[in-house]
Amino acid sequence: MDTYRLAMIGFGNVGQGFAQILAERGPQLARAYGLNLKIVAVCDLLKGSLCDPAGLDPAALLAAVQSSGRLDSIPAPHRGWDALGTIAKVDADALIELSYTDLKTGEPAITHLRAALERGLHIVTTNKGPIALCYPDLKAIADEHGVEIGAEGTVMSGTPSLRFGQELLAAAGITRIQGIVNGTTNYILTQMENGMDYTAALAGAQAKGYAEADPTGDVEGYDAAGKVVILANLLMGASLDMAAVDRTGITALTPQDIAAAQSAGARWKLIGRVESENGKIIASVRPTRLPLAHPLASVGGATNALTFTTDLLGDVTVVGPGAGRLETGYALICDLLAIHRKQRQ
Amino acid sequence: MDTYRLAMIGFGNVGQGFAQILAERGPQLARAYGLNLKIVAVCDLLKGSLCDPAGLDPAALLAAVQSSGRLDSIPAPHRGWDALGTIAKVDADALIELSYTDLKTGEPAITHLRAALERGLHIVTTNKGPIALCYPDLKAIADEHGVEIGAEGTVMSGTPSLRFGQELLAAAGITRIQGIVNGTTNYILTQMENGMDYTAALAGAQAKGYAEADPTGDVEGYDAAGKVVILANLLMGASLDMAAVDRTGITALTPQDIAAAQSAGARWKLIGRVESENGKIIASVRPTRLPLAHPLASVGGATNALTFTTDLLGDVTVVGPGAGRLETGYALICDLLAIHRKQRQ
Repeated sequence: MDTYRLAMIGFGNVGQGFAQILAERGPQLARAYGLNLKIVAVCDLLKGSLCDPAGLDPAALLAAVQSSGRLDSIPAPHRGWDALGTIAKVDADALIELSYTDLKTGEPAITHLRAALERGLHIVTTNKGPIALCYPDLKAIADEHGVEIGAEGTVMSGTPSLRFGQELLAAAGITRIQGIVNGTTNYILTQMENGMDYTAALAGAQAKGYAEADPTGDVEGYDAAGKVVILANLLMGASLDMAAVDRTGITALTPQDIAAAQSAGARWKLIGRVESENGKIIASVRPTRLPLAHPLASVGGATNALTFTTDLLGDVTVVGPGAGRLETGYALICDLLAIHRKQRQ
Repeated sequence: MDTYRLAMIGFGNVGQGFAQILAERGPQLARAYGLNLKIVAVCDLLKGSLCDPAGLDPAALLAAVQSSGRLDSIPAPHRGWDALGTIAKVDADALIELSYTDLKTGEPAITHLRAALERGLHIVTTNKGPIALCYPDLKAIADEHGVEIGAEGTVMSGTPSLRFGQELLAAAGITRIQGIVNGTTNYILTQMENGMDYTAALAGAQAKGYAEADPTGDVEGYDAAGKVVILANLLMGASLDMAAVDRTGITALTPQDIAAAQSAGARWKLIGRVESENGKIIASVRPTRLPLAHPLASVGGATNALTFTTDLLGDVTVVGPGAGRLETGYALICDLLAIHRKQRQ
């Protein structure tokens, strides 16, 4: 039985989902995979920071946050370290980086991830910012230190899409990847087909917690563009930046556009796409009218889907959740198990 | 660079697809994965049998079969060994078993696979017979000899479905797997929706090479039942036999049934299904009326699809080709790369 000691930066929704999975299934995962996942540090800007080399009970962490919104009630030999202090001092095997997403600067996550890699820790994150903005750099540091990067949760949350592409499809020759990678806009478009106008559909998405108060990142296609960059750079060997993505959001779509598509037997979807054209990688995010028979047309609500076009298999599509607390928490489990498999080589 | 010496039993469609992939992409795969795949023996009942420890050129094998239907023109130090002779004498790392499929006895493949495992060879096959009928036995022999079994091509041809489930979804807790796993019946049902009756649709499938002269295996659901057993035993820890599958084919479906579904906004699909119910594994194959909005309803023609229901991710669906020469050949590549990854652990 191997043990991975985990330091967590950020203990919001995803971090709590991860802790819940460990609380409910940790022993079962350990038996099945020979890997004991032990949280030894948690550092959260709002909830507090603590470190215990003997291990922190995930159920106790959850209970503390639920009752007080903070981690103060949990006994621990070290407290109050900030994120960089935690990374510098903790005795850990992997850093789980779950600070907030900034698709313009990638910070503070990039700084955290670099520091962890330099210390020889594996890094696992569901944060699109650093992976979309600086994956090639992070990968170089990781290779130099013989450690791994897990980023499964940055695209389609816990639906295994990056590892599906990397581990199971890459040898078939991936020439194009396209799909629905933003659940918020897909939900809004589904509601508009049911007769709502854009403003009402957006308000509904905000009420459900799908869209943020400032919805720009979703509705203007920045979130999808970040995911397209990640797909290009991790699965197609590109080194694109955000500016390389030809990006159009859904805000200009009118109820008339939606109705016209419906009466033509079609449906609007915000499609992220990356493809190899004459040896060059071309990337885009734009509203696309798909015939109803298209496999991506029937993907409704907050579900995500990606179609990989390959030389040997033609099209292979994966459909699954694109968000959710346990779902995204599972992405971290999937990455840690994959790193464990790889490290035993 | 590691080298895997491969002995092939059977050089029909799938074997030739595999050889074509090696001829076109062998060096590229070797560079990308550090694995040199070298065919050292081919034994085919009709085309002849030869063995060359120095390696057989896959392009030359294909050219010989194309020009003469046989392998006689290729120089080789050993010729004329039968299947068991080849397995007993060849100096190889893996056996690729591609003899014909018999879902009643599993032979001659079971005998070939046992003999190879006993000699310490990995086995890789796209043949449902032995995997559906005797996987637990074969796995025990493989474990005893420290070798691996690859069976990706037995379900959904080269679409990575078994490894997707085993390597990327299993930790999410698979509770049910259901889907369209027989392309022939799905093609017939799609044609019946377009207005054909069953007899005409079957004749069309036979003309296209999708259905065999005796279509019983497909239309009565035996092929799908074999795949359901494989999914249950490889992904859900069951040890079902064929008789445990509650099986109904599509032969009783009438044009009236099809029309009635259509006017109710639904569609008939032959659904293979395995699920865990109160700790017991229940398996079935039966025509099922799905609402059009169901993710499996839009999977038409010879395409296959599987939906995995999991504790942590809910439903995750994979859609891809269910047949084809290169597609099924890719399943062997996918398995050999996975075995190579595992062996380096």
